Amino acid sequence: MGQTPYLRLDVAVMEANLAAAAAACARVGAALRPHAKTHKCPQIADLQLAAGALGLTVATIGEAEVFAAAGATDLFIGYPLWVDEDSRVRLATLQNAGVRLRVGCDSIEAATRLIGLDLEVLIELDSGHHRSGISVERTGELAVELGELGVDVAGAFTFPGHSYSPDAGADAAAQEAATLAQARDELRAVGIEPRVLSGGSTPSLNHSGTVADELRPGVYVFGDAQQVELGTIGFDQVALTVMSTVVSHAGGRVICDAGSKALGADRAPWATGYGRVLDVPDARIVALSEHHATIEWPGPLPRLGTTVAVMPNHACNAVNLNEYYQLSSGGRWPVAARGRNN
Amino acid sequence: MGQTPYLRLDVAVMEANLAAAAAACARVGAALRPHAKTHKCPQIADLQLAAGALGLTVATIGEAEVFAAAGATDLFIGYPLWVDEDSRVRLATLQNAGVRLRVGCDSIEAATRLIGLDLEVLIELDSGHHRSGISVERTGELAVELGELGVDVAGAFTFPGHSYSPDAGADAAAQEAATLAQARDELRAVGIEPRVLSGGSTPSLNHSGTVADELRPGVYVFGDAQQVELGTIGFDQVALTVMSTVVSHAGGRVICDAGSKALGADRAPWATGYGRVLDVPDARIVALSEHHATIEWPGPLPRLGTTVAVMPNHACNAVNLNEYYQLSSGGRWPVAARGRNN
Repeated sequence: MGQTPYLRLDVAVMEANLAAAAAACARVGAALRPHAKTHKCPQIADLQLAAGALGLTVATIGEAEVFAAAGATDLFIGYPLWVDEDSRVRLATLQNAGVRLRVGCDSIEAATRLIGLDLEVLIELDSGHHRSGISVERTGELAVELGELGVDVAGAFTFPGHSYSPDAGADAAAQEAATLAQARDELRAVGIEPRVLSGGSTPSLNHSGTVADELRPGVYVFGDAQQVELGTIGFDQVALTVMSTVVSHAGGRVICDAGSKALGADRAPWATGYGRVLDVPDARIVALSEHHATIEWPGPLPRLGTTVAVMPNHACNAVNLNEYYQLSSGGRWPVAARGRNN
Repeated sequence: MGQTPYLRLDVAVMEANLAAAAAACARVGAALRPHAKTHKCPQIADLQLAAGALGLTVATIGEAEVFAAAGATDLFIGYPLWVDEDSRVRLATLQNAGVRLRVGCDSIEAATRLIGLDLEVLIELDSGHHRSGISVERTGELAVELGELGVDVAGAFTFPGHSYSPDAGADAAAQEAATLAQARDELRAVGIEPRVLSGGSTPSLNHSGTVADELRPGVYVFGDAQQVELGTIGFDQVALTVMSTVVSHAGGRVICDAGSKALGADRAPWATGYGRVLDVPDARIVALSEHHATIEWPGPLPRLGTTVAVMPNHACNAVNLNEYYQLSSGGRWPVAARGRNN
């Protein structure tokens, strides 16, 4: 199966996750437009689309290019793009290739750089995560300004990222719904009937209401230690692990060769460590270097050379550190959009 | 200069860092064997060697292969390797290509897998970082066991990684020196004259004593926000930045497009944020998503579209997320050993 550390994907577990998300969206009448930044892999995107996804969300033009080259025809770049001349050419090239392209925007300045591109634009709203996105009260005003520039305001989107905190999923989903509902009213008040109201995150997915037309979770496809510790899923729903080898227990703890260059260095304030061990729930990864995970292990230590399956805290960053997935069913899939940060 | 986010390397600042480290080693009579996992770049390794470095340290066999292919002839894999059949072939191939190869070891089990490879082995010691490495009192005992296997014990090494804490550099250097001195005595007591006692880390470098024969700092070549916040260096000694664009300030804070997929997600408990802004010491990166840095900015916000130079917290992980360095002097150098985790 290759030398550790490497990414292992349990395809059957992933397929169950795809079906569960499709069902969650169906229950609230929303389309599923999964965020492909999590997997960066056309083969996985194809499975998402086959399981009923409407199209894909991506974070960058570079990711859009990779998925378009692999056949994707409906892409939302869920990001407030700042478009320079080079980006204009790349966006136009995607459109000319027949891709239906939507992009995010949260300022008149960014919108002026979209003039003439004939893109559908979604206004980004802050529903409580306090990252990018305008306050919803400004939706009508910005929509009018964008309209005056000739920009096609297709609707609005938000990322309820404040769902990434213990017991926050339901509240974040409620704020998402309230924000999108108010945005719809704001847009209608200025004469725009929104064609799409878009929300979604993995921890809030199962709490979603009926306001959003589409939901954009990303991590749900794999699951990870964060989702387990947030209570979104159980260990048995985690499809992605970094396979590692016990290389030392000289100090009475287990040292594995999966470090921050394999797992990513993510550690939220509420996390119990730098990842979790799939088959040993009581183990804790108490320290992480680039090539060492220091694990406090319950009971007798596994022998040197033992293979340990580590769940990264944050699947998206772990995937981006690797060139391919080693499949449980045999074979490999590429992380085709790895490193496509722009 | 390319679309953001991208890595920018100020070559003049880096060369000043190389000279300073060479001087620091000369003051204590130690050779410099820089850790090349920081830069993963043969062009930078060549500059280090030209500035007086004795050879290179690497973390993995894969890194050793990249640097050997680029001409390196003296490599220490500073890691307690667990060698399987494939790794044996790769190590032998490196030796057959004329590379002088040393590797780390901290157990009899790992040593049995080195038999017949005719490598020089350095026993790894824990000098207070509590990661891999044996307690120094066990040095003589393990050396004898390794010798009975026919393994060539060339000496000992330690990484004083507990230097990565405020005001810890001097104490870590003192513990490193005491550990290496005791290891020398332990080895002599069992009839082994150590050919090398190896230590070093960037925060402890300027506190090094005269015990170590060689020092292996890595980050010193670039500097990063961690080193600034530890007080190891000043802002003007940071050679590496991630160039980013202000894409939003809808919420009254600056949002740049350098997220954890460009900077890495490292944040030590004592860090003030997820990196620092090179030219704005009072700015703080208070949140980090994959493609967003949320910056609390002192005074008037920079206009949308402004380019901001962000110092990653941990240079090694930021570099590994990129394919190349954009040089201040023009041109690019590749991150040739990117992702070589095994």
